[in-house]
Amino acid sequence: MISKPTLLLDEHKCKANITFMAERAKQFNVELRPHFKTHQSLEIGRWFKDVGVTKITTSSLDMANYFSKEWNDITVAFPVNILEIDTINNLASSITLNVLIESETSLKFLKKHLQHPVNFYIKINIGNNRAGLLHYDTESIDALLKTSKNSDKLNFIGFLGHAGQTYKCRSKTDIISVHEEAKKKLVSLKNQYKSHYPNIIASYGDTPSCSVAENFDGIDEIRPGNYAFYDIMQVQIGSCNVNDIAVALECPIVGIHPKQSEVVIYGGGIHLSKDRMEDDAFGTIYGNVAQKSDNGWNKLIANTYVRGISQEHGIVKVPESDLHHYTVGDTLLVLPVHSCMTADLMKRYKTIDDKEITMMMANL
Amino acid sequence: MISKPTLLLDEHKCKANITFMAERAKQFNVELRPHFKTHQSLEIGRWFKDVGVTKITTSSLDMANYFSKEWNDITVAFPVNILEIDTINNLASSITLNVLIESETSLKFLKKHLQHPVNFYIKINIGNNRAGLLHYDTESIDALLKTSKNSDKLNFIGFLGHAGQTYKCRSKTDIISVHEEAKKKLVSLKNQYKSHYPNIIASYGDTPSCSVAENFDGIDEIRPGNYAFYDIMQVQIGSCNVNDIAVALECPIVGIHPKQSEVVIYGGGIHLSKDRMEDDAFGTIYGNVAQKSDNGWNKLIANTYVRGISQEHGIVKVPESDLHHYTVGDTLLVLPVHSCMTADLMKRYKTIDDKEITMMMANL
Repeated sequence: MISKPTLLLDEHKCKANITFMAERAKQFNVELRPHFKTHQSLEIGRWFKDVGVTKITTSSLDMANYFSKEWNDITVAFPVNILEIDTINNLASSITLNVLIESETSLKFLKKHLQHPVNFYIKINIGNNRAGLLHYDTESIDALLKTSKNSDKLNFIGFLGHAGQTYKCRSKTDIISVHEEAKKKLVSLKNQYKSHYPNIIASYGDTPSCSVAENFDGIDEIRPGNYAFYDIMQVQIGSCNVNDIAVALECPIVGIHPKQSEVVIYGGGIHLSKDRMEDDAFGTIYGNVAQKSDNGWNKLIANTYVRGISQEHGIVKVPESDLHHYTVGDTLLVLPVHSCMTADLMKRYKTIDDKEITMMMANL
Repeated sequence: MISKPTLLLDEHKCKANITFMAERAKQFNVELRPHFKTHQSLEIGRWFKDVGVTKITTSSLDMANYFSKEWNDITVAFPVNILEIDTINNLASSITLNVLIESETSLKFLKKHLQHPVNFYIKINIGNNRAGLLHYDTESIDALLKTSKNSDKLNFIGFLGHAGQTYKCRSKTDIISVHEEAKKKLVSLKNQYKSHYPNIIASYGDTPSCSVAENFDGIDEIRPGNYAFYDIMQVQIGSCNVNDIAVALECPIVGIHPKQSEVVIYGGGIHLSKDRMEDDAFGTIYGNVAQKSDNGWNKLIANTYVRGISQEHGIVKVPESDLHHYTVGDTLLVLPVHSCMTADLMKRYKTIDDKEITMMMANL
């Protein structure tokens, strides 16, 4: 029995997701370099080793440092932060470290201050409009390659893009169409530079594309992360089914409000995160509620969702006819909107057979 | 020089805010029981002792436990979670513990399982529609009082409400009007029950009301918390000025995109939180950028704001004419939308004179 908000992990579902993506990677002949920012756990990381994964992605140098205990080829999929040069040199002395470059300033700084060889991808904006050089900005790309050319520490290994714009999709068909366009941008670029750099690769990511697309021609490596857990946002996007979601926040029930047909839970923004989504029927929601079962949870409870959260409170809207199922002192299970953010906040997992799994301590 | 996202604390501004509220409490003859969920730090807590504060509020039993090292009268302003009965009994054995009751089930459970006396407030919904009994629901209130009457462990101390609906206000006038209505609900209830319970109090909270209202007649205790730091949401509400904001997230600059007139920073949802606000001019924003000064920061930089965040990235929109002020490898300062959530994520402070201040480790 739990006493506080607790992140439950269905190990069986998680391992099935991990296997699913490894098989897709084999099927489409791409290397799988999964993003470990979702689970941030050495122990869960080992489940990926079991399906043949040997290279990983992290979102920070701190996270690379944590995983370097058990992994020796790590890509930090974030524009390199040169203020952390000491961590970079330290990591590069012991593992194959791959960083992302999008700035001439960063590259020149690395050229001057690196003590060990580092691989770099040029980060390309393939439509997500977050980070990276625009895919047609060959002038900037050429300038970077010129800077790195005569360095014995900087090794150009290819172009990296993240088609995060798939998060706006609402069906498999949508995802595939966005994927095709994003992929084309990245692959054309690789083909354009291949004559001068024959070994470069195209590294491509995002869970929606990697979960449902059927054509990865020209892509060499994929970096999905969220698929290990999935979440209700991925269900809305069209990446997975509710049954694939491998984490749920178990929350104590602390109040029942029959007049409002609401249940107050201990479980708020510091547990679930404030990530939200627009539900067609209910507007802004912060999670759905799943039916408990003997071994975890199964389907969603219809019309039951977290309508609001503050720091520690969650307010769950419940159909009036279901209110009698809820009791103060009992718990309910919230499937998160964004599992990566919930995991980052919760800092540990409890598997449904009651094993505790620890993770890295971000920001500590 | 920082190398990673770092939460800066302007000790001078913070202490001025702490003094400001202590003086208001004296002026309006109410007891100040500040909410410590904002800073979650024993060291910052001591700054409140310096202005005469002796009682505090927390949002969880864990937080009460942390602060019980230095405080002996703590209200946990959250509907009591009976699954944590062991923590309740443990705390009640050493400090004056005040809990919130809104459920008959919880009260009966406490009556049976408490080993030490505990004070309780009845939690009233005074318009925020989050937790609490409806202010006119005297039937439920009477039932609770009947249950507690013959218990030697349960001591009814009054009614507690949180006028969180002030967060929808956009001016001082708005706040005062919402405050008057919310206060009336709470105070009438106290007056209604005073003949039977002559010592009960009305405990009232929320930073907007407590920052600007001028009439607290009938209120005995106030519980604002955010005012220690404030944030840009409080500026928008009308609670404070930008100059009162006492925390800023210092973020490394990792990319500059002249074509989009944007700066990419290391500082995302796991640092700032995903709390957002609607800016009249710019739509959804996740923070404003402040001008650095010799001793911290002063005013906002006009038209410069965080337009999007993901797990580790922040995307800052910058006027084209200002772009030359930003350099990769330098840092910029983001004033958070919601300082409580940012502090909870960052887990420590660096004062502008370079002292490190630790806080409790939530969820650990």
